[in-house]
Amino acid sequence: MTCDTATPRHDIGLDDILAARVRLFGAGAPAQLRKTPLLKLDGASLGLACAEVWFKLEHLQLGGSFKARGMFNRLLSTQVPRAGVVIASGGNAGIACAAAARAVGAPCTVFVSSVSPMAKREKLAALGASVVVAGDHYPQALQACRERAAETGAMLVHAYDQVEVVAGAGTLALEIEEQAGLPDAVLVSVGGGGLIGGLAAGFASRTRVVALEPEACPTLYEARRQGHPVDVDVGGIAADSLGARRIGDIAWTVTQRHVDTALLVPDEAIREAQRWMWNELRLAVEPAAAVPLAALRCGACTPGPDARVCLIVCGANLDPASLN
Amino acid sequence: MTCDTATPRHDIGLDDILAARVRLFGAGAPAQLRKTPLLKLDGASLGLACAEVWFKLEHLQLGGSFKARGMFNRLLSTQVPRAGVVIASGGNAGIACAAAARAVGAPCTVFVSSVSPMAKREKLAALGASVVVAGDHYPQALQACRERAAETGAMLVHAYDQVEVVAGAGTLALEIEEQAGLPDAVLVSVGGGGLIGGLAAGFASRTRVVALEPEACPTLYEARRQGHPVDVDVGGIAADSLGARRIGDIAWTVTQRHVDTALLVPDEAIREAQRWMWNELRLAVEPAAAVPLAALRCGACTPGPDARVCLIVCGANLDPASLN
Repeated sequence: MTCDTATPRHDIGLDDILAARVRLFGAGAPAQLRKTPLLKLDGASLGLACAEVWFKLEHLQLGGSFKARGMFNRLLSTQVPRAGVVIASGGNAGIACAAAARAVGAPCTVFVSSVSPMAKREKLAALGASVVVAGDHYPQALQACRERAAETGAMLVHAYDQVEVVAGAGTLALEIEEQAGLPDAVLVSVGGGGLIGGLAAGFASRTRVVALEPEACPTLYEARRQGHPVDVDVGGIAADSLGARRIGDIAWTVTQRHVDTALLVPDEAIREAQRWMWNELRLAVEPAAAVPLAALRCGACTPGPDARVCLIVCGANLDPASLN
Repeated sequence: MTCDTATPRHDIGLDDILAARVRLFGAGAPAQLRKTPLLKLDGASLGLACAEVWFKLEHLQLGGSFKARGMFNRLLSTQVPRAGVVIASGGNAGIACAAAARAVGAPCTVFVSSVSPMAKREKLAALGASVVVAGDHYPQALQACRERAAETGAMLVHAYDQVEVVAGAGTLALEIEEQAGLPDAVLVSVGGGGLIGGLAAGFASRTRVVALEPEACPTLYEARRQGHPVDVDVGGIAADSLGARRIGDIAWTVTQRHVDTALLVPDEAIREAQRWMWNELRLAVEPAAAVPLAALRCGACTPGPDARVCLIVCGANLDPASLN
């Protein structure tokens, strides 16, 4: 059932997510992981043409993003080898993996490229991870990470395309339903697809899940247009967290089954929504987390006047000075 | 029953708060006011020697602080005169009053002193308020505000010492209990006392309410030491929101009845807690809102290993760049 097997699964289902929920929040689960709060607001009071807007405040998760759910689930799903865990990531996934590894007492090595900022390397080091700089781009860091895993027997953790990682993110769907019932639509930003894969499998077509990407990072959008995952160019305001060049295989399978709509949002709308969330809601979030509200505010997504819409506020790893 | 009468009450009770709750959240209430979420975390996972820590995220309230509850309650409790409302405040109370006035369609004039920052005046103007600069210090602004009320018949709104203002803040107590039951202790920072007055009256000794002030703003602490409200010198990191020079009469009465403990917290601990809340929880809050966590982290307050402790996160009107 793990991705360590020779033929990994490219799909997840509700059973994977239910198992993840027991690991993450059942008896004996690590206390560090958080059930994050939901802020329910009146749509009209926000100037939006829908009945209710629910903000799922997942940026308050351990490590500042939803990624911790998947990382904990991956590390708790099997015995971690003595060589520990390895991951290639200069961003939220690396931070979450380091935090999860520290919580379960496993050594963690994070492979980053030379463009990764010193502030993120310092944060990884503060979480107890070893940081290895490998090459000038992500593919080189990933290659070095895979080699290390093959050499040492360390557990390879993928940032978004492993069953346990996606299923961990899927616990968000069950948590939202437990807190507030089923919304009429869930709006979520997409990078490599770990988050939308989990949400779509967790809601399992019981509610509408809308995939949102910056115009400058159209990874899922292009895959759907061409009928299969393809490499795309990525850039723009949210590239640091949504800049995966190719949609994950698991996310592809699950979204083909459970997601009807994939939309693009311009960077200017994302930036405007990010500032609005700070000015009006005092939520300090990274651009990726502002994409759902941007889609509502710029009119890319029009859920209807009676709709209760849930926005996934996915991360807050930003320089707060950038909100000025 | 209002403070417009010749002999204002210097006390509030649960009946005032229940009436406020109906005005603020009952049928026909303005949709702008928010029920704010509660974040429940494991004490040990935060390095604290208590069972649970509840963060009441009231900094996500309309206007960025708890003040909106009191201002809406004041404005909704009587017919607002055609001359509108007037308040003297360069800070959160003025912003909340302007937001409430806009919501009910009343003209609002905010009196500030010349030291009030341009950014706050611009925010007030953006909320539709008229801003009048009167004198170089708060007492002069307050005097000008009172004169305007006497001249025009405008409703005078006090920042923290009117029955409806304190009772509005008290709806927080009922909301916490509704969301999570009664905690073992509630930790709250004190400026003029509007917030603690409301909470103490709302919890009515059913749980322990702990009053916390910066060492540099010992308004309630000194009043208790001397046995009656006194003027104190104020300054330090949280003076912009906690710098009332004298505890309000209502807060004095209610805290004498329902609050056993008033403690002081050093500015360094407040600053450290403010940064910790950003780094570990992604909560961007003003210094006043970090005082409760500071009291736990610096050991000023030791609630006991089994305690479930609720911290009131009261405001977020800060320059986000100050978190770096």
